[in-house]
Amino acid sequence: MPVGTVASVKGVSQDIIDVQLLLGNTYHLYLRPGIEQVRKLGGLHRFMSWPRAILTDSGGFQVFSLRELRKLSEEGVTFRSHLDGSAHFFSPESAIEAQIGLGADIIMAFDECTEYPAEKARARQSMELSLRWAERSKRRFEVRKHEVPWGPISSFPNPERETPPGMSPPGNDNGMGAEARQSLFGIVQGGMDFQLRRESAERTVEIGFPGYAIGGLSVGEPRALTREVIEATLEHLPTDKPRYVMGVGTPEEIVEYAALGVDMMDCVLPTRAARHGLLFTSEGKISIKQARYASDQNPLDPNCACQVCHRYSRAYLRHLYASNEVLAQVLNSVHNLSFYLDTMRAVRHSIALGKGARFLSGEQS
Amino acid sequence: MPVGTVASVKGVSQDIIDVQLLLGNTYHLYLRPGIEQVRKLGGLHRFMSWPRAILTDSGGFQVFSLRELRKLSEEGVTFRSHLDGSAHFFSPESAIEAQIGLGADIIMAFDECTEYPAEKARARQSMELSLRWAERSKRRFEVRKHEVPWGPISSFPNPERETPPGMSPPGNDNGMGAEARQSLFGIVQGGMDFQLRRESAERTVEIGFPGYAIGGLSVGEPRALTREVIEATLEHLPTDKPRYVMGVGTPEEIVEYAALGVDMMDCVLPTRAARHGLLFTSEGKISIKQARYASDQNPLDPNCACQVCHRYSRAYLRHLYASNEVLAQVLNSVHNLSFYLDTMRAVRHSIALGKGARFLSGEQS
Repeated sequence: MPVGTVASVKGVSQDIIDVQLLLGNTYHLYLRPGIEQVRKLGGLHRFMSWPRAILTDSGGFQVFSLRELRKLSEEGVTFRSHLDGSAHFFSPESAIEAQIGLGADIIMAFDECTEYPAEKARARQSMELSLRWAERSKRRFEVRKHEVPWGPISSFPNPERETPPGMSPPGNDNGMGAEARQSLFGIVQGGMDFQLRRESAERTVEIGFPGYAIGGLSVGEPRALTREVIEATLEHLPTDKPRYVMGVGTPEEIVEYAALGVDMMDCVLPTRAARHGLLFTSEGKISIKQARYASDQNPLDPNCACQVCHRYSRAYLRHLYASNEVLAQVLNSVHNLSFYLDTMRAVRHSIALGKGARFLSGEQS
Repeated sequence: MPVGTVASVKGVSQDIIDVQLLLGNTYHLYLRPGIEQVRKLGGLHRFMSWPRAILTDSGGFQVFSLRELRKLSEEGVTFRSHLDGSAHFFSPESAIEAQIGLGADIIMAFDECTEYPAEKARARQSMELSLRWAERSKRRFEVRKHEVPWGPISSFPNPERETPPGMSPPGNDNGMGAEARQSLFGIVQGGMDFQLRRESAERTVEIGFPGYAIGGLSVGEPRALTREVIEATLEHLPTDKPRYVMGVGTPEEIVEYAALGVDMMDCVLPTRAARHGLLFTSEGKISIKQARYASDQNPLDPNCACQVCHRYSRAYLRHLYASNEVLAQVLNSVHNLSFYLDTMRAVRHSIALGKGARFLSGEQS
């Protein structure tokens, strides 16, 4: 899932994002344009004119990242906006209501992202809090889920026109008709302790969700440990439900995690790296700012079919980056997203052919 | 002509610019990536992967804008780079050689853009200098024009692939085959004095060019005066050659000037205004940052067929702008360019129907 923080994958128009599922950040959308604003406009799909699926996080991770600006209690988290310093409060209940207002297809329980490193006692205490919050999240979701602002397609912007290419009704077009509902996923915590991860997984499954995320990773731990925790947690999560690792990873890592059995991942890396001129290619990473590309007439990645590799040379991309042109960010983001999505397409293809493991060991890592 | 300052129309990929002729700025390209660099890479068309026509200015206007950073002599202009303060020198000869190196289809004589206001004596002196420079520009062009770096299409970036949609060989695909050459246009100066303008026009025509520009406008004079100078100059320029007014204008102005007989115009207004959230629509100008658009589900312009008006609401565009998202600049620029190009298409259509004047007086102004 590419990350569309405030209802936009930075620099890239919805027309060119060929993906099934986008992520939106509840914390950012809550601050701007505001939950009520999005709800009034018919939900996030309609607001950003994105007919395919959306997942919103609960805001817990962003609030966790604010560090000095937040204060935690059993009830929830008080935090200050990174934009204007104003005080706000998120609880499991308000985070769920916010996500119902945004109307994503998949929404997340409100959890505490345990910091790294953490003593076992601290990790347990944090995990217990996340479990109590998971129950409260589910309870509030069951009461309020009918309030999702999905409407008929006729209320799409610009209703008198033909539907844009590839567009279909948002949210309620998943084959379930009027019965369609948001799905609330639970989140496993437990720090880097395998025992706690197992306990968190089992007790989250006991509460019962249609999908499960592994949270609390990518918080500064070594990458080898990330993988071990994923592996240790996955085996306690049902294989017939989507399993989602939050906030990972490099192209190599997402292939590796998919081979372990992970179904979903999100990461800002492709778009953030693009803004810094760091490009992923089938021949390795390229830092396009380097002078060695100034006269390089080759496409960025000779094995990539994206519109950037199809049309532009490395020399041109290097020039745009060196000249601080906005088009550099746009084209770099389009390519990196394509590379990620191609990588996942290859993974899915390998899985369909029944050789996920061979793909992992032979072609990519 | 949209302005693609350093080989990029700011924020907009070449794929979505549906225009016959783009402008590039010699001054900016000279500084970055450098003329030799572009020449080595096969010229501007190939460098920026733009198969349609390009016009480059001579750098004179940009150097004129540097004010404190330049020093004028009969020979040419010494100036300091706005990027790093390094010293450079442009003469008619070097400006022409630079433009041959860039390889645009239409290139411009090196002139002095007379400041506003200017006494008649000063305007005459400046006009005389531009006339001497026009002769020198033409002389150098005749000697060096064969050095244009146009090559066969097989040297396009990524030659093994199919040509991108709409792409054809650059430069040499104007039906003249290998005989194709750049066209050097002359520039009329003379300040705001009609007599001087007439004299400049007549003497520039005497030197002889395949097209003529009216320069020295949009330098701070009142808009009514701009129009009067255009009108007074046009009547002394041949109607069977393209007549180009440099650096104008608003949508209303370009319609008005076209009705006067102007064939070509360039302006940064559509893209620059877009970056400031100022959008041109068939119902007037819109400042998208205004709170009144926060809940407006209508398209930006109900009469516009561009991809932005087709897909996004004013509420979403307002949100992107208010959130400082890069996509705001991208989408705003795409729309404003579409609006300008649609305006010119309507003008051409009216001319074809033989009712340019009616279009001018009835529909747009």
